[in-house]
Amino acid sequence: MFNNKKNKELLFEKNLFFYASVRGSFILLPQGYVLWQNIQKELDKKFAVHGIQNVLLPTLIPLSLFSKEKEHIEGFNPECYYIEKIGNKKLLDPLILRPTSETAFYYLYSKILFSYKQLPLLYNQWCSVFRNEKNISVFFRNTEFYWQEGHTIHISENEARKLVFDILDDYKWYVKNILCLANFSGRKTEEEKFKGALETYSIECLLPDKQCLQLATSHYFGNNFCKLMNVKFQNKENIFQYPFSTSWGTSTRAIGAITKTHNDENGIIFPFFIAPIQIAFVLITNDLQLFKYYQEINNLISTFYRCKLYNNNSQFNLNIKQADQEGCPIKIILGLKEMQEKNITLIRRNNNNKKYLIFLEKDIKEDLILIHNNVLKKIIKERKDYDYNIEKYELEELIKKEIKKNKIKKIIEEQALLLNKNLYQNSLIFLKKNIYEIKNYEDLNSKIKINIEGLFLISFCNEIECEKNIKNKIKSYSIRCIKENIIKDKIKCLFCQSLAKIIVYLGRSK
Amino acid sequence: MFNNKKNKELLFEKNLFFYASVRGSFILLPQGYVLWQNIQKELDKKFAVHGIQNVLLPTLIPLSLFSKEKEHIEGFNPECYYIEKIGNKKLLDPLILRPTSETAFYYLYSKILFSYKQLPLLYNQWCSVFRNEKNISVFFRNTEFYWQEGHTIHISENEARKLVFDILDDYKWYVKNILCLANFSGRKTEEEKFKGALETYSIECLLPDKQCLQLATSHYFGNNFCKLMNVKFQNKENIFQYPFSTSWGTSTRAIGAITKTHNDENGIIFPFFIAPIQIAFVLITNDLQLFKYYQEINNLISTFYRCKLYNNNSQFNLNIKQADQEGCPIKIILGLKEMQEKNITLIRRNNNNKKYLIFLEKDIKEDLILIHNNVLKKIIKERKDYDYNIEKYELEELIKKEIKKNKIKKIIEEQALLLNKNLYQNSLIFLKKNIYEIKNYEDLNSKIKINIEGLFLISFCNEIECEKNIKNKIKSYSIRCIKENIIKDKIKCLFCQSLAKIIVYLGRSK
Repeated sequence: MFNNKKNKELLFEKNLFFYASVRGSFILLPQGYVLWQNIQKELDKKFAVHGIQNVLLPTLIPLSLFSKEKEHIEGFNPECYYIEKIGNKKLLDPLILRPTSETAFYYLYSKILFSYKQLPLLYNQWCSVFRNEKNISVFFRNTEFYWQEGHTIHISENEARKLVFDILDDYKWYVKNILCLANFSGRKTEEEKFKGALETYSIECLLPDKQCLQLATSHYFGNNFCKLMNVKFQNKENIFQYPFSTSWGTSTRAIGAITKTHNDENGIIFPFFIAPIQIAFVLITNDLQLFKYYQEINNLISTFYRCKLYNNNSQFNLNIKQADQEGCPIKIILGLKEMQEKNITLIRRNNNNKKYLIFLEKDIKEDLILIHNNVLKKIIKERKDYDYNIEKYELEELIKKEIKKNKIKKIIEEQALLLNKNLYQNSLIFLKKNIYEIKNYEDLNSKIKINIEGLFLISFCNEIECEKNIKNKIKSYSIRCIKENIIKDKIKCLFCQSLAKIIVYLGRSK
Repeated sequence: MFNNKKNKELLFEKNLFFYASVRGSFILLPQGYVLWQNIQKELDKKFAVHGIQNVLLPTLIPLSLFSKEKEHIEGFNPECYYIEKIGNKKLLDPLILRPTSETAFYYLYSKILFSYKQLPLLYNQWCSVFRNEKNISVFFRNTEFYWQEGHTIHISENEARKLVFDILDDYKWYVKNILCLANFSGRKTEEEKFKGALETYSIECLLPDKQCLQLATSHYFGNNFCKLMNVKFQNKENIFQYPFSTSWGTSTRAIGAITKTHNDENGIIFPFFIAPIQIAFVLITNDLQLFKYYQEINNLISTFYRCKLYNNNSQFNLNIKQADQEGCPIKIILGLKEMQEKNITLIRRNNNNKKYLIFLEKDIKEDLILIHNNVLKKIIKERKDYDYNIEKYELEELIKKEIKKNKIKKIIEEQALLLNKNLYQNSLIFLKKNIYEIKNYEDLNSKIKINIEGLFLISFCNEIECEKNIKNKIKSYSIRCIKENIIKDKIKCLFCQSLAKIIVYLGRSK
């Protein structure tokens, strides 16, 4: 279907994305769009628990406003997209396309915040941002990509810090249970943290090419940004005070990570909860009665799961293959045998095509016949006030359907969790296999020389001058995040031989 | 809470939007965001029936690509936002911010379409677009606003035309049943149609200031755009052919229309299905037992409706007022009396505060006691395989809860429909009162002279020269759309006195 069907990867990503007319941007095709929407739904549910609400801010930011922040995000300016002209009119104050929205959020907060009674303000937005990336890689490095950016302001340092960690926990849950990716996380070092933040925490994964990908970050800003942008409030004593703030985000990189990590010879395997199609129905024969049976089963579960019938191809095997290529994690196979015996065959994608036979009606009929007429009548009478057409046999059918529905739902849930667990376990095995505890600089150097790639655990002094020197010593590697503090042992820094204070993850960045 | 709390309108629109730092743009605050999301959900459901899928295309379009279309959308260029510089680098081919995405969609179609087997391609996107509006009015005229744009391509003219009308029907349903706005619709005249379209149909409403607002449009393009953008496919005979295409959209203007139209002395009344908060709970006393009763009722309905407890203020009346100010269409009042008698009091916003007392448990208990132990045991046994902890009394509770849930849901549904109907009826009365059948030019002129405003039904020749002349004759009025063709009577055009072919709506544009 696509123009440059050169390699397997494009096949993997069929219906996920296409290259846009603008250099470095991508188009989210229907499957990619649904995948991103499902990710949004899962995270929104988590964010809502903390009282976080979504808003939508403009794409454009006046350069004069953005420049207030330039000390902090000095790195952004060379990447910015500038609007200096609208129609034929030259602008006195040019506009930029948001590379991030701190200034836009703090502008809003400075206008609407007056009293401590309004705090905390907990806003998040789902939007696209713009960066002039040189080395383009779809989902990993793009000029326009989609993300979520939360910006919250709080009355106290403690409350703000707590949110930074609460969100980091949400991201850990999301990366493990929704994306099914093994990961590592920790505080960023001085050199690697977000400019302007007091503390940055990241959660990262190791891709099959053994490069590290930062999946999400959570920042604590203290009151730096609020001071800079003049965001303040009157406290209980009517004294003006600067609030404490946080910021945190994750992006469409997540889609890149799961497509590269979870796949077999037929293509991507989507983690169950975000899969665009969760249940693929495939029929063994082209039979009207069988089609009706499929409809019956589909009706039972299509309110819970995203289901699709694969019957475009004339051959059963081709339909199976198409479902796999579109990343469906679970298939339900229906044939005349299944129809006659009132059961279904379920295949979990990452289970060597092992089949489960699920009986739907066993032990149900007899029980229903026993339901006492009198009792039924009473219930029917009660329900009749609200649903005039219900009859006894209909209620029986309702109860029967409910029991069947629960039965099938329960089994799919179990299989879904097994599938996700299996994806995560595979990813964890890969991560563990590629973490190396490094004793000294020679050890590190010899590993790199013989092309051993992965994640290196090293001891580090945590001094900024030493960190700046790393790229001169070992090319393309950098410190990803801090694993732990060194408490008692007198260990030396791998690079400068002074006293090491922390153990860090060293890796190549995607 | 806001800076310029100068007039009542800002109060109405509290938590809906705030002014952005960029001239002419707005920020969607939490309530406004949820409202827009709810509108999206309702329309996505309708669009999905036709097989339409969502995609997401980049914000930027190369000027060279956009210029291909310039004959068709010549009107856009003076409004465009130009990017001529990224960082310090000057661009050879400048980029523009999409004012509309025809070129981006047709670029995609030209790359992915090969065979008739792929048709139709039915894509839609929810995004923001950019226009350099001179007279800014939040939700009505903005430099950046949110909309939905559908772009579909079809194998045949008939199929494309059918979709244009199917979507127009969806919009009519949406404007009437979701936005609850009285409306008029029809084909646009040559002068007013979308440049490049063969036919444009619009659906419009009359705002309280008696200006007309175009809420949605549906266009038929023939194969003009496909020819221009070189989108073609091989038909069954392997001959290359241009497909036929459509485009259609609606925008955040809808939010403007409902806030201006549906309100009372306390603020906006949101139509039920899209209301950010549908059910406001207000408690008469601050009592722990009563709070538990509220939780019980809330649990029954919060899976169906967006509910919120209003208890920020110390006084009952202030909580009621806050719920009204936030636009809640239905309130549920709970006091000790309600708790003891196991009922709830429901107030529909636009019903002069008439109260409904709803009994939740009457006639339920006795029936349940009669349910035969034996039968229950059987059902329990069946369910136990999947839900190990269920006991007899739990099942009784489940059934009881289910009956109560249905009871309350049914009544809320009825009240919701009544509320929506009432909003629509009020809007219809206003529209009918302000439509004038105009006999001749003098009649029209004299009405305008004595400041009668509204919608004028006039006979028209449908000649482009005559239409161009209208703005010279009557300032700020234009033809909104065609009401009907004139079949037999020899009626004269109101403006040029030649033979009239159509009856049109004449009005002022918002």
